[in-house]
Amino acid sequence: MTAVDPARAACPAPPHETERVLLGHGSGGRLSAELLGHVLLPALGAPPDAVAEDAAVVTVAGAELVLTTDAFVVDPLVFPGGDIGRLAVHGTVNDLAMMGAAPVALALAYIIEEGFPIADLRRHTASAGAAAAEAGVRIATGDTKVVGRGAADGLYVTTTGLGRRLPGARMSAGAARPGDAVLLSGPIGRHGMAILGARESLGFEAEIASDTRSLHRLAAAMVARGGAALHAMRDPTRGGLAAALNEIAAASAVGIMIDEEAVPVPALVAAACDLLGLDPLHVANEGCLVAMVAADAADATLATMRATPEGRDAVRLGTVVADHPGRVVMHTLMGGRRVVDVLVGEQLPRIC
Amino acid sequence: MTAVDPARAACPAPPHETERVLLGHGSGGRLSAELLGHVLLPALGAPPDAVAEDAAVVTVAGAELVLTTDAFVVDPLVFPGGDIGRLAVHGTVNDLAMMGAAPVALALAYIIEEGFPIADLRRHTASAGAAAAEAGVRIATGDTKVVGRGAADGLYVTTTGLGRRLPGARMSAGAARPGDAVLLSGPIGRHGMAILGARESLGFEAEIASDTRSLHRLAAAMVARGGAALHAMRDPTRGGLAAALNEIAAASAVGIMIDEEAVPVPALVAAACDLLGLDPLHVANEGCLVAMVAADAADATLATMRATPEGRDAVRLGTVVADHPGRVVMHTLMGGRRVVDVLVGEQLPRIC
Repeated sequence: MTAVDPARAACPAPPHETERVLLGHGSGGRLSAELLGHVLLPALGAPPDAVAEDAAVVTVAGAELVLTTDAFVVDPLVFPGGDIGRLAVHGTVNDLAMMGAAPVALALAYIIEEGFPIADLRRHTASAGAAAAEAGVRIATGDTKVVGRGAADGLYVTTTGLGRRLPGARMSAGAARPGDAVLLSGPIGRHGMAILGARESLGFEAEIASDTRSLHRLAAAMVARGGAALHAMRDPTRGGLAAALNEIAAASAVGIMIDEEAVPVPALVAAACDLLGLDPLHVANEGCLVAMVAADAADATLATMRATPEGRDAVRLGTVVADHPGRVVMHTLMGGRRVVDVLVGEQLPRIC
Repeated sequence: MTAVDPARAACPAPPHETERVLLGHGSGGRLSAELLGHVLLPALGAPPDAVAEDAAVVTVAGAELVLTTDAFVVDPLVFPGGDIGRLAVHGTVNDLAMMGAAPVALALAYIIEEGFPIADLRRHTASAGAAAAEAGVRIATGDTKVVGRGAADGLYVTTTGLGRRLPGARMSAGAARPGDAVLLSGPIGRHGMAILGARESLGFEAEIASDTRSLHRLAAAMVARGGAALHAMRDPTRGGLAAALNEIAAASAVGIMIDEEAVPVPALVAAACDLLGLDPLHVANEGCLVAMVAADAADATLATMRATPEGRDAVRLGTVVADHPGRVVMHTLMGGRRVVDVLVGEQLPRIC
């Protein structure tokens, strides 16, 4: 029999103090939100609901700048449609674009495992350089650290982007309003399924290529058409479309209704998801965006999107509603309704 | 017998294509410079001599902004005088400060190994938050990725800093001139020896604490005294004072003469280095800076430095000369001279 210290019995350890980080804490799902809200933000002295964006607005000399950072740990480093270098640039350019910012400069930080082939390092760096050149942004600075064998898995890249907000851009995850149209720029599920196919050698009948690409020109066209009508914008990466919609619903305290019929899932993605029991709504994307747009501007915005290469296949998915705030609900093909929830943990780790 | 393809025989693989990354490529020494100059910058389409600073100047809306990024992979995560959270903030604030910039915002990106204790994550995040608050800068955004067990070593932190250049600040690693005084803000060798002591359980007689701290107030005082006289400034981190002086000598195409007698090495550091056969000039620091200052402003700048807490023990180390451009030479205590070279590889991996 062990004696119980009454002070300890009366004051158990806070729930997170005895726990360990799980893979799911990096998923972009509910565990990620918990880690951010209950551990990281309080440790920084910030309120737990302080952050709903993937980027911060910083005003300097009267200019609205946007700063965003992302660590890329994708496995494998090369996949159909891209590699870690391109992905790291696209992901960061897109985080700026979702705030209505044009990219001004990028910074790249490498953590490399000892023994990593220099030819591969050159290849991924050239990919990052090419993606930056295509996006019209400069890789202005960087850093390289090397850790011993077994202390990393090849190469990790952290990309930070500095952008300047476009005149008229005011979107925020918290600014969606009932009545807004929910617009999606193109088909979903390609990036996540490309990674899964490359990793698991699943022998899909045909190769699915990642949709990784920069979206700042599409976003800029939408802002130019009318920034005031563009309430919220998000690229559905980790956690997929379901996570992006839920984040906006929660941050804006609105409900979102979407039509399953309207969700564009490529046939190959649908078949692979079916085979593996995955929901395309939870699969990561790296080349599409979802936007909440004032009803009277929806058709014109959709036309603007469709006039760009990145938004050619844009669709209207549904509507923002005042009902069920914080929840995303889908009219299913079967004529019913279901809640589109966020996964608790990880459907597929290290997809970006 | 294998046939030799004549095209291949005539065109061997470039030297780096068949090689692998070594721990020394992350040392801040000669291998790091080679990787940057021969692999990374060419892959980005930049000239091999493009970068001599730890930060980039980006002009937005007429304001001179400075952007810098650093990956922190220090081992162990906690050491006398600090931890990875404080170090990550100090290192980035200091890279901004060395360009004469006041910190405006920081971004933190975590790569966490599955199974890492959440209490430790909270502790290091709180450290980063406290260091940022002390420096008067906001951690504005961040990212968290989790990788499987064995794919990282606990926690890696990449910190990016956005700063605004102070009026009058014009220093650059390439702007030192013959005749300049070489000023050092305080004693060297504490950070590297603190890490080594914590890692190896060497049983030093007394504990050496890291000098990790933010230097932007010291740098700002020096700029305020007279920015035009402040030609070059660098914090001697990886590679130590020897690397910082050699970088400035190379970038400015000048020689540097220093006096061994003037180099402030704390007794504990000197004893530990002696025991282990290390040269304090190569040991990393995280809380001092070296500056090349116009001769006629040297005494006044030294007085300004000594009036700040971070520069209380500032000294004049030597002089910039026109002789032996690109080389650092030391008058030794024995009355001789020796070249102070950069290490090829790694004296001590993962010190930051």
